[in-house]
Amino acid sequence: MKTLIKGGKVVNADGSRMADVLLDGEHIAKVAESLDTPADRVIDASGKLVIPGGIDVHTHFDLPFGGTVSSDNFDTGQKAAAFGGTTCHIDFAIQISGRPLKEAIDLWHQKADGKATIDYGFHLAITEMNDSVMNELATLPDLGVTSLKLFMAYKNVFMVDDETLFRTMMAARDIGLLTCVHAENGDVIDVLVAQLLAEGKTDPVYHGKSRPHWAEAEATGRAAAFAAISGAPLYVVHLTCASALDQVRMARAKGVKVAAETCPQYLFTTEEDLARPNFEGAKYVCSPPVRTEADQAALWGGLTDGNLACVSTDHCSFNFKDQKELGRDDFTKIPNGLPGIEDRMMVLYHYGVTGSKLSPERWVELCATNPAKIFGLYPRKGTIAEGADGDVVVWDPAKEHTISAKTHHMNVDYNLFEGLKVKGVPSIVFSAGRLLVEDGEFKGETGAGRFIKRDLIHDVV
Amino acid sequence: MKTLIKGGKVVNADGSRMADVLLDGEHIAKVAESLDTPADRVIDASGKLVIPGGIDVHTHFDLPFGGTVSSDNFDTGQKAAAFGGTTCHIDFAIQISGRPLKEAIDLWHQKADGKATIDYGFHLAITEMNDSVMNELATLPDLGVTSLKLFMAYKNVFMVDDETLFRTMMAARDIGLLTCVHAENGDVIDVLVAQLLAEGKTDPVYHGKSRPHWAEAEATGRAAAFAAISGAPLYVVHLTCASALDQVRMARAKGVKVAAETCPQYLFTTEEDLARPNFEGAKYVCSPPVRTEADQAALWGGLTDGNLACVSTDHCSFNFKDQKELGRDDFTKIPNGLPGIEDRMMVLYHYGVTGSKLSPERWVELCATNPAKIFGLYPRKGTIAEGADGDVVVWDPAKEHTISAKTHHMNVDYNLFEGLKVKGVPSIVFSAGRLLVEDGEFKGETGAGRFIKRDLIHDVV
Amino acid sequence: MKTLIKGGKVVNADGSRMADVLLDGEHIAKVAESLDTPADRVIDASGKLVIPGGIDVHTHFDLPFGGTVSSDNFDTGQKAAAFGGTTCHIDFAIQISGRPLKEAIDLWHQKADGKATIDYGFHLAITEMNDSVMNELATLPDLGVTSLKLFMAYKNVFMVDDETLFRTMMAARDIGLLTCVHAENGDVIDVLVAQLLAEGKTDPVYHGKSRPHWAEAEATGRAAAFAAISGAPLYVVHLTCASALDQVRMARAKGVKVAAETCPQYLFTTEEDLARPNFEGAKYVCSPPVRTEADQAALWGGLTDGNLACVSTDHCSFNFKDQKELGRDDFTKIPNGLPGIEDRMMVLYHYGVTGSKLSPERWVELCATNPAKIFGLYPRKGTIAEGADGDVVVWDPAKEHTISAKTHHMNVDYNLFEGLKVKGVPSIVFSAGRLLVEDGEFKGETGAGRFIKRDLIHDVV
Amino acid sequence: MKTLIKGGKVVNADGSRMADVLLDGEHIAKVAESLDTPADRVIDASGKLVIPGGIDVHTHFDLPFGGTVSSDNFDTGQKAAAFGGTTCHIDFAIQISGRPLKEAIDLWHQKADGKATIDYGFHLAITEMNDSVMNELATLPDLGVTSLKLFMAYKNVFMVDDETLFRTMMAARDIGLLTCVHAENGDVIDVLVAQLLAEGKTDPVYHGKSRPHWAEAEATGRAAAFAAISGAPLYVVHLTCASALDQVRMARAKGVKVAAETCPQYLFTTEEDLARPNFEGAKYVCSPPVRTEADQAALWGGLTDGNLACVSTDHCSFNFKDQKELGRDDFTKIPNGLPGIEDRMMVLYHYGVTGSKLSPERWVELCATNPAKIFGLYPRKGTIAEGADGDVVVWDPAKEHTISAKTHHMNVDYNLFEGLKVKGVPSIVFSAGRLLVEDGEFKGETGAGRFIKRDLIHDVV
Repeated sequence: MKTLIKGGKVVNADGSRMADVLLDGEHIAKVAESLDTPADRVIDASGKLVIPGGIDVHTHFDLPFGGTVSSDNFDTGQKAAAFGGTTCHIDFAIQISGRPLKEAIDLWHQKADGKATIDYGFHLAITEMNDSVMNELATLPDLGVTSLKLFMAYKNVFMVDDETLFRTMMAARDIGLLTCVHAENGDVIDVLVAQLLAEGKTDPVYHGKSRPHWAEAEATGRAAAFAAISGAPLYVVHLTCASALDQVRMARAKGVKVAAETCPQYLFTTEEDLARPNFEGAKYVCSPPVRTEADQAALWGGLTDGNLACVSTDHCSFNFKDQKELGRDDFTKIPNGLPGIEDRMMVLYHYGVTGSKLSPERWVELCATNPAKIFGLYPRKGTIAEGADGDVVVWDPAKEHTISAKTHHMNVDYNLFEGLKVKGVPSIVFSAGRLLVEDGEFKGETGAGRFIKRDLIHDVV
Repeated sequence: MKTLIKGGKVVNADGSRMADVLLDGEHIAKVAESLDTPADRVIDASGKLVIPGGIDVHTHFDLPFGGTVSSDNFDTGQKAAAFGGTTCHIDFAIQISGRPLKEAIDLWHQKADGKATIDYGFHLAITEMNDSVMNELATLPDLGVTSLKLFMAYKNVFMVDDETLFRTMMAARDIGLLTCVHAENGDVIDVLVAQLLAEGKTDPVYHGKSRPHWAEAEATGRAAAFAAISGAPLYVVHLTCASALDQVRMARAKGVKVAAETCPQYLFTTEEDLARPNFEGAKYVCSPPVRTEADQAALWGGLTDGNLACVSTDHCSFNFKDQKELGRDDFTKIPNGLPGIEDRMMVLYHYGVTGSKLSPERWVELCATNPAKIFGLYPRKGTIAEGADGDVVVWDPAKEHTISAKTHHMNVDYNLFEGLKVKGVPSIVFSAGRLLVEDGEFKGETGAGRFIKRDLIHDVV
Repeated sequence: MKTLIKGGKVVNADGSRMADVLLDGEHIAKVAESLDTPADRVIDASGKLVIPGGIDVHTHFDLPFGGTVSSDNFDTGQKAAAFGGTTCHIDFAIQISGRPLKEAIDLWHQKADGKATIDYGFHLAITEMNDSVMNELATLPDLGVTSLKLFMAYKNVFMVDDETLFRTMMAARDIGLLTCVHAENGDVIDVLVAQLLAEGKTDPVYHGKSRPHWAEAEATGRAAAFAAISGAPLYVVHLTCASALDQVRMARAKGVKVAAETCPQYLFTTEEDLARPNFEGAKYVCSPPVRTEADQAALWGGLTDGNLACVSTDHCSFNFKDQKELGRDDFTKIPNGLPGIEDRMMVLYHYGVTGSKLSPERWVELCATNPAKIFGLYPRKGTIAEGADGDVVVWDPAKEHTISAKTHHMNVDYNLFEGLKVKGVPSIVFSAGRLLVEDGEFKGETGAGRFIKRDLIHDVV
Repeated sequence: MKTLIKGGKVVNADGSRMADVLLDGEHIAKVAESLDTPADRVIDASGKLVIPGGIDVHTHFDLPFGGTVSSDNFDTGQKAAAFGGTTCHIDFAIQISGRPLKEAIDLWHQKADGKATIDYGFHLAITEMNDSVMNELATLPDLGVTSLKLFMAYKNVFMVDDETLFRTMMAARDIGLLTCVHAENGDVIDVLVAQLLAEGKTDPVYHGKSRPHWAEAEATGRAAAFAAISGAPLYVVHLTCASALDQVRMARAKGVKVAAETCPQYLFTTEEDLARPNFEGAKYVCSPPVRTEADQAALWGGLTDGNLACVSTDHCSFNFKDQKELGRDDFTKIPNGLPGIEDRMMVLYHYGVTGSKLSPERWVELCATNPAKIFGLYPRKGTIAEGADGDVVVWDPAKEHTISAKTHHMNVDYNLFEGLKVKGVPSIVFSAGRLLVEDGEFKGETGAGRFIKRDLIHDVV
């Protein structure tokens, strides 16, 4: 099967040019001006952008959490991703406490097998480090898993102490694994939570109060210090605020190998959303919590100056009804997590590129190229180049679309951007050379998505 | 007993003026131009500065540490202080692990009773927090103790976890106690120490390597975050480096109540001293370790812009012979600590004021006024003002003196500033109106020094 | 005439205590607990604060500007000041272009003579530097004028070039004069203004657009660099924004002698006020312009961490009717300036102290002590101390007052804080020992205010 | 002519891989594993790196300056470049004061014509802006010149005032030209120079004293502010110090389009070199001057965190004998400028990559890819990719070489790195597919170098 995409503007992180793109089998076979190779299908991309498929490096499909399970699984979540122009994601396999890591990877394979429509990888989230697990780390690359995640929050559940985090980073450095951290101070948060609950403060808005930006900033600085001392590369997931960004910026200015991502919820919603009446605030409950407009402004500075390398989603959807509602009487019982995998590239294009804050090239870099580079997928993914995987999106920069839970494809009963009319949407989406979505119709094949073994990682961008 | 000091320039933190000072009994009775009150003694202070006696808020006299005891006790240490123009200090009473705090205070009173020649107070260093100790905190003000110290380093010895530190700060805030922290990450340091020893790296220079500035910077930022979240005031002891100062500066710029001190060793010696041959480096072993010239430059910036509030000594002397030598084969066995209480005001005057980096007023502020203000001693001490304690130093800005272990009064066999010729020395020193030192002779009375109950503390400068 | 103020809490910058204050003639004769000296009048200050009179170092009374004259003169302006608890101000004598500086000082004396009710001093604003003026600088101290102001904006009117500013600072340093700067880039502003007018953008909101914060930040950084290079002290008037504050902070962190003030308009109003409909925005037109909420937050950080040393007003009132209205068709014709001298201490107390952002001591420091220290008036003014001028305010921290143009004493037809109910107001105000205001009634004597010769200035706080 | 480079590791800014590279005519025809295309020559690159040829965007060949002419012309300078692995440079055509820009470009073409051995472009340095020149700017792209340079120093010679700089940036933005600035405050420098000379301070070391880092920092911040206000992209040439880098970093963190370069002299020499005895300091005289070790450390942080985008040379060589010596009695008469085009890539590789401060990919990015991207040459140059120009260097990472004026190819009688043994040197160099240098022998053809018309520039990296 050969597909020739003609007349579009190919947008890569390092530049744009008018060029035709030939997909042949699973790969991009040719990128050149005025290609006339015979093809099974020729697509007219005039006036369109041709971009590498989006990569979302932070998702939680089919995740048991707080007595319920996140509402998108590998079937619904990946299809929603495809509708949004995202053709690859990395999900977090969560270690079953104290058990071998391999079991988590096996379990996550079971979750994905037969359901996948796009390519995917796994991070390994450590929930209990011990000597046996430390020894097992070296076996992960063979399983295609080259990134870990450790939690500095969720005390007595996932949280690791500083010695464990530091020793794990040193081991990861030697093996070629990238350490990701959830950077919030779990000790402080627990004290604050207890105090708020004791005062009868149970509304969703107190979720935000219980997790002040200082708790994130210090943990971010702490992890960055560990990266500095160990020489290990570090990736800070879901960075939300000016003060944490300052810590990243200071560390990078001293040559520390630290990269960070933010997520759409931190760019476009605020703590005022957490205070919405009628328990609507619960729709915005995630950790770290959404912050302020001043934080949003700071994050945009990070997106342009390079201190924020990626925009991912932390997609972990829970229905408002029956799921978010579990916390009606106690904000700590609201499942933490938000939907977003379908919206990510559109809202970032709309506010960023249409809104003149980001060049199209930087948008591609944040959504696809840097995620691929950082997580051992580049240049197989994240760029329109010969030999790369045929993950290609024809993007219509002029088309408008109104985001709504009524029409989105995520398996969740609300949308953070309900009613937002965005300009700039995916028209046609290919995964590994196969047509996946066209004109709002799913054309892919369930089960065709592939697990991708990722390369070793020794540095960040 | 009345003493009239005539013709000098009175230097306070808030300004200088030509004025005469009358001491009457324990207090300053009058400060005015051309005083002609009859007095038992009249001192000609022409060409001299008349300053409030120095206050050193960080000393460790008679401290058991690492199988030995610090070589200066309340007798030798206070006399040395007096020779250097310091007439008050605050020593750290160390909780006997898990025991009531009162026992430590009692013990420290025993150490001081009968030996004291200058006034003094106690901080309470917490080594093991528990519910009983938490409850005991509220009793400290009645004992005259209004500052705590907690350790973020020395794991399994003094180190407290984040929950303990945070909860203690909240309690301290409510009571009116100031929380001091030793800010270094104990977890990371222990891992590094073990690694260095395993590699056979046992020289003093590795003491510095085992305690990188990043470990201090992150702990400083962490404690500052706790101050921000709790609203409790915080005092960072012995800050050594640019990166930790950055953390203090960022927090203060956001309105956090955090003050910090540095010490002469961090202003005037570097890691190159730790690398001196023939085990001489051991003479410079203290924690956090001495750093680099770039750090020194940053600290001077902090002294002038106000982000460093005090210069104290962390005086904890050990003889090179028999004491420092305990670590000849293993740097971890070198007792941590340096002498300095006698030299502090002279070296800071010499490099700072004579060297045109500090005004005389700022020097007084750093050495006496801010220490008094922050630690609940002001305006009783730290200023030349009517009603204040008669702790007064006649300082000769023109006189030169060569610092040397041969002539110093500290009970230790070396001096960090051996051979340094300083310009600017104390001529006459009064404590509570009593003559203490004159022309290099001790004139005081052993046992006359007083324990000072300090005021509650709710903020920092 | 002796007045004894009993039972109040004396609040100075360096601490508060319960004490009685005896005024005798023009001075404070005694400050002590339980004074029972006979007095002509005894005031019960129970429950009140007793503070040094406010000092506003930035006023423009009787100032010709843009074809009109500022509406408050030394009579109305000083009386309004007194009602607000301010008992001293420094007005800007403006050099008549190219003429000897002495002429400006003479002219300003004429403006004040016979009208003054409180004490005052003059800065000298340079509008055209030349060799003759440069030579005249050394004569200023004898005239009691020890501070200059130079403009980096208002091209072709007041603006000086970099060589002139730098050379003036070097001369000022040698003489003992403090250089104040209006820090905005006049070149850029003029280009923007021309562009906006050419586009027909004439509303008040474009006043703000024509003077971006970057233009202030760079000029602030430039002046600070000149201070660094020359070693001259620098005072930045009316600092408005986070980016300019960053420049001050960076310079101070490197030991540069730079201090800065902000004004109430920058703490409590924003560019949204400039956009008020019906030309109401003109009421907020001053230069630099009012900014954003994020800038306000940053300024509060500067007030607490010490990088902002003073809060002054830049009081330069113009009536909305007939004066501000001159610019109905062209924002450049709106007279620049706002009223505030009466409100300053109340709004800062209300939002700051009542609002828990500032301690009462810091409020006094910002409003009186630092202004006195920086501008050569301390310890004569700015503190409640024996020998100081009898400028004393009995402040009622519990009393509420609604600010309104209907009731204020400034000669201007609107108030920036119209309708604001503040908590904390002056009850009784003394100037040089004379009763000035009591219970909202003016009790002073027109003409009794004195011109104060100020001391030489070599440094800033 | 086809050349096949086999077995090497292709290092691009975005990643490295083992691959063969086929040059065909002027271009890179193929990059792939295990290429077996027939070729005229096959090169064994085992153990070698294959990198894009270096691009030096800051050179001054054949430049009249201070009564003499820089000693390297387009013949000697380009050949020296080639020996160092640099295959493209951009020289500054200097406007003849007040004359049409076209004349400068014509003149620079004359300098290069017939001499060139590598490709090159021109910037246009404005020395006198007027309306006619402003109108001429729009014609530059057709001449292949898409970057300007303006001087904030060299008063009365090259320096432009702020209005001119700002208006030029606005015009440049509209046309698609990148504005480069020499950022030092010319006013201040002239005052300091006059003062030093008046004091009889004429040695080379005073060159440094006359140009303090603050003068560079403020000008850098000023230009960045203009970029922020205008939205124009900015490129700061030869940034030297921590304080200027701070200004760049702060601006970028707020989304300003500013990039900066540093040069080897600022990374590897200091003001102590300026103080070398026997007038040897003159060998290090360039503007801005070389700084301190602390500045060097800061610059390395900028190279790793991305705030410094390029390393160029500012190559402007003058012989010590007869040229530098012109200033024996007066440092202002020492021709400003240093040699370096031959050494740049080697010293940066040696200290950076061999010294573990930079990855090989980042080294390529700093020396070739970013220069190409920023200056409108990418992807034609700056990357090993199909279709790109055949500017390719086979780099031997293991080979050692001792740098010396005795053996270098620059036409200058000294070398900044005399005696330095570097590890990592170019083995074989191709320009546009032609062999240029091999095993230390020049194999190219004089006159074969091409002037490259560059693309419009709207942003920086």
